[in-house]
Amino acid sequence: MSLNALQTQEILNQQNETYQTRRATVPALEEILFDAIPLLDHGFIRVIDYMGDDSAIVQAARVSYGKGTKKVSEDQGLINYLMRHRHSTPFEMCEIKFHVKLPIFVARQWIRHRTANVNEYSARYSILDKEFYIPQPEHLASQSQINNQGRGDVLDGERAARVMQLLKEDACRAYDHYQVMLNETETGAKIDENEDGLARELARMNLPVNFYTQWYWKIDLHNFMHFLSLRADSHAQYEIRVYAEAMLEVLKKWVPITYQAFTDYRVGSAHLSAKGLDVVRALLAGKQLTREESKMGIREWRELEAVLQTKLD
Amino acid sequence: MSLNALQTQEILNQQNETYQTRRATVPALEEILFDAIPLLDHGFIRVIDYMGDDSAIVQAARVSYGKGTKKVSEDQGLINYLMRHRHSTPFEMCEIKFHVKLPIFVARQWIRHRTANVNEYSARYSILDKEFYIPQPEHLASQSQINNQGRGDVLDGERAARVMQLLKEDACRAYDHYQVMLNETETGAKIDENEDGLARELARMNLPVNFYTQWYWKIDLHNFMHFLSLRADSHAQYEIRVYAEAMLEVLKKWVPITYQAFTDYRVGSAHLSAKGLDVVRALLAGKQLTREESKMGIREWRELEAVLQTKLD
Amino acid sequence: MSLNALQTQEILNQQNETYQTRRATVPALEEILFDAIPLLDHGFIRVIDYMGDDSAIVQAARVSYGKGTKKVSEDQGLINYLMRHRHSTPFEMCEIKFHVKLPIFVARQWIRHRTANVNEYSARYSILDKEFYIPQPEHLASQSQINNQGRGDVLDGERAARVMQLLKEDACRAYDHYQVMLNETETGAKIDENEDGLARELARMNLPVNFYTQWYWKIDLHNFMHFLSLRADSHAQYEIRVYAEAMLEVLKKWVPITYQAFTDYRVGSAHLSAKGLDVVRALLAGKQLTREESKMGIREWRELEAVLQTKLD
Amino acid sequence: MSLNALQTQEILNQQNETYQTRRATVPALEEILFDAIPLLDHGFIRVIDYMGDDSAIVQAARVSYGKGTKKVSEDQGLINYLMRHRHSTPFEMCEIKFHVKLPIFVARQWIRHRTANVNEYSARYSILDKEFYIPQPEHLASQSQINNQGRGDVLDGERAARVMQLLKEDACRAYDHYQVMLNETETGAKIDENEDGLARELARMNLPVNFYTQWYWKIDLHNFMHFLSLRADSHAQYEIRVYAEAMLEVLKKWVPITYQAFTDYRVGSAHLSAKGLDVVRALLAGKQLTREESKMGIREWRELEAVLQTKLD
Repeated sequence: MSLNALQTQEILNQQNETYQTRRATVPALEEILFDAIPLLDHGFIRVIDYMGDDSAIVQAARVSYGKGTKKVSEDQGLINYLMRHRHSTPFEMCEIKFHVKLPIFVARQWIRHRTANVNEYSARYSILDKEFYIPQPEHLASQSQINNQGRGDVLDGERAARVMQLLKEDACRAYDHYQVMLNETETGAKIDENEDGLARELARMNLPVNFYTQWYWKIDLHNFMHFLSLRADSHAQYEIRVYAEAMLEVLKKWVPITYQAFTDYRVGSAHLSAKGLDVVRALLAGKQLTREESKMGIREWRELEAVLQTKLD
Repeated sequence: MSLNALQTQEILNQQNETYQTRRATVPALEEILFDAIPLLDHGFIRVIDYMGDDSAIVQAARVSYGKGTKKVSEDQGLINYLMRHRHSTPFEMCEIKFHVKLPIFVARQWIRHRTANVNEYSARYSILDKEFYIPQPEHLASQSQINNQGRGDVLDGERAARVMQLLKEDACRAYDHYQVMLNETETGAKIDENEDGLARELARMNLPVNFYTQWYWKIDLHNFMHFLSLRADSHAQYEIRVYAEAMLEVLKKWVPITYQAFTDYRVGSAHLSAKGLDVVRALLAGKQLTREESKMGIREWRELEAVLQTKLD
Repeated sequence: MSLNALQTQEILNQQNETYQTRRATVPALEEILFDAIPLLDHGFIRVIDYMGDDSAIVQAARVSYGKGTKKVSEDQGLINYLMRHRHSTPFEMCEIKFHVKLPIFVARQWIRHRTANVNEYSARYSILDKEFYIPQPEHLASQSQINNQGRGDVLDGERAARVMQLLKEDACRAYDHYQVMLNETETGAKIDENEDGLARELARMNLPVNFYTQWYWKIDLHNFMHFLSLRADSHAQYEIRVYAEAMLEVLKKWVPITYQAFTDYRVGSAHLSAKGLDVVRALLAGKQLTREESKMGIREWRELEAVLQTKLD
Repeated sequence: MSLNALQTQEILNQQNETYQTRRATVPALEEILFDAIPLLDHGFIRVIDYMGDDSAIVQAARVSYGKGTKKVSEDQGLINYLMRHRHSTPFEMCEIKFHVKLPIFVARQWIRHRTANVNEYSARYSILDKEFYIPQPEHLASQSQINNQGRGDVLDGERAARVMQLLKEDACRAYDHYQVMLNETETGAKIDENEDGLARELARMNLPVNFYTQWYWKIDLHNFMHFLSLRADSHAQYEIRVYAEAMLEVLKKWVPITYQAFTDYRVGSAHLSAKGLDVVRALLAGKQLTREESKMGIREWRELEAVLQTKLD
């Protein structure tokens, strides 16, 4: 991460101001408010604002005049119930806002989650910094042979070094040419005094998708958990997963009861199909179904074995 | 409005607690937080929570590391610019949450605004109170003869009295029979000890749509202003307009700069069609177009006269 | 259901017109297009239009230049895979539009599904017909004693008769007074020639929520299945469930491969929590966990037993 | 544009199949169905499917049993009325689906319109083709000096040539290195038999944002017009505007009455602020307000002059 002195100072200034409020307040989240949590080589997430806490979920579910909370155990029971039965609306009553710095190719996956509010830094309007993502060697994996959409073994050292060199050279050259086309140095000076620069909205098209962008991103708790369940998952690309995992830690500080329910009913949970349930029910009744009897495909059968942590035939 | 003692106490309890926060805080809104602002005969709105203030719009628009605000006049200029050019995303970065009590027929119009979060009191789960809306005589208007969807003159006193009597009698009888079907008095006691009550989800079907319901309603600032521009408008039904107008006052306390921009560019503004613009441009150039030359319909022509506050032919 | 002669004729007229199209077309759905499928005592659903078929899902998932389909077994495999792994976007590429007539209290549950397009008949603008829902005696259930939100045993005959009488009388009286307030008979004639009628937007407030309304409702296939999974479920109120179940039959005609996948992976499926999975894995490994060891609550434990169709302790 | 033989054949195959349907059908749109309309140097739009026509808007607005249309002039009047008064829901009852090929930086602007369904070609799963956007010399504009977000004069020939050379060289080199990292030639052969290729999801990060991607994109008519009003506008970047302008032609074929209303009430229309209206009303009443009296800013004042096509002071 590379915050410059001005950015660091602006963050500190905001952290040093405090106010009185009657709103639901979460001390554990206040502590890290505005902090830049570093991710990848130049990225970060910063919690900018939040609305509500665990009790706000209970309050909305009960359409309360006051806080709506009863005993902790009752609140916990209600939140567990809501999570288990996928009652989504009470969780929509909390909201969180982040400032995120991330590579463009990660941003392109991220933006597919439509139920969020986004303000992105505009490369039509402003000039991008010279910051691009280069993976660590241990993340330079080969193409998976069994999953078109996944990674296999890590590349060997020499080949990894060659890949990193190519990525770096191409990114640097692309940025140099970006400046040439803009006719502008990093300090904003003209390179050639007698020439106009190419429009920013055009020059930026030369930059590869490992360059960093940044945005403000705001989402309600229900959709936030949906995002996390997909992006903190092992099927997600590593580079977006590190963001989701850091956000899971934020979730834990913000709404600890909901976090626990989320862990129990989503993260470690599994969905069994009608056919999968038949297999389990048969096993519990002392009867073993073959894959043919179950009418499941091979891939699905293997997925079921993985979920049950049992060899089925 | 009819808050009972317990509800009043719960509101007071929540108002008496304050916390330290680093989040953007609006003292003018804090002052009325949780207050029940009475509307119609039994309804209210209460501000429950909010996220952001005028500076949060500026901060998101600039994707800032700190507060993002510069001089007040610059912030104001930016907010005006964003409003004028319908840049909606920075306004989505603020959020507000209300507790609203409202007649069912108003709730049915309100819920058409889909970009909001809602938790409604459930008449499947709980028993509704005996509270229904009876208009004041001065709002008992006749059907408009020129607008199928509007009101004409106020009914004369005798007829108004008859209408109010019918509304009251029918609502009371409906509620009595609701209790008979539930087999339950207002205190929760059984009416007939030897009988089961009808399921709540069925018994409620006897209640007319002037009965009150309530919900928690959360929306971002952009969509809130869209709601207000439609529902605080003279074409909106009076009974929803009073809610929107009370919310306009909340908007003013919450984000005063945005409120001013909203007033200038939305509330008092007008949209001129290509044909309407032709008429205006011609007039300014000293030439008067007839309606036939303008190719506008009669209704549209009258609407243009109203906007321009000018007789056009 | 009560279609008048004009409505029946309008439907027939539309059914008699056919056109040539290059679009994906589903003969089994064409056959019932525009038909009114009767539901409850006066309601119906009618399929008005649709976009796409099973192959359109495959086509979008593959971002194809042509139809995108390969062998039926491969298409089926892909649709199953997409359903199993909750890839929602390809299912969003199909769309269906209904005309629905339904009681207001059902419409109030239905409208909570926000990701749909709706045009409702306006009681501000038009006069509602004298049509209200009266349950059949076998659906007049008592309030459940174990589930605040459910039904228990059916009421005995005498009590059921009394309930039906109350519902009918109140609905008829409410409608009579609606007409008195409107000062208008069903034929549109004035009741009292010398009086103005109350505005429609006010008079309608006297009608109970078992009166019928109607709307056009359009939704994509992904959100349609989400609606069906919640509303064709045994926890849904009977009166909305009959609509969802009739729509399941439409789904089967429209996209038979997707319907089969939906049946396998949603309808008959179950979600196991992390704790529930621990119990199952232990059982399959020959070890029985007690409820205390599982750290599950009683209610959750019973739900797990129901899913596994096994007594756990 | 570069369709290969297989793609061309797949399109022709689909165009050669026709079906009987009772659905609303638009012959003018059927004619161009599946056609690839070329845009920029390698992009295109293709209409893949549609639901509804002008009459479907009328039908939904009237909640009809039949087609809902009356005389053409009445339908036209209703559609004009709906457009003028921003009644959006009837327009949501029509839907259109496109296959679009576009540069990544255009896709990044496009995707900000959230109310649409999207399936994008996955560069995690598949290998991108060697196709990138190079502007024509006449579109190589310099950075605007008055608008941070716009273009000024076209670059002179020599400088334009230099920019095009840089863009081409960098794109070609990036693609060559993409293949080296994948260890795969365009035919799918391994470059180095003894090596694994880098995972696709990583290798693609080297490609600049002028590379082409493609997606299926589906949207309702209301949101489609909103997209067009923003993206066919002179403030939109040229490279997205060409797509929007081609789609305007599609709109004209699909729903000609709505297209006309859109042209009258949106495209050529203007929004006057409360202050702007004051100026116009004063002028029409024979009084000239100064800018100071109007309380408008300079920029806003110039915008008003542009709208009125009149010098105001």
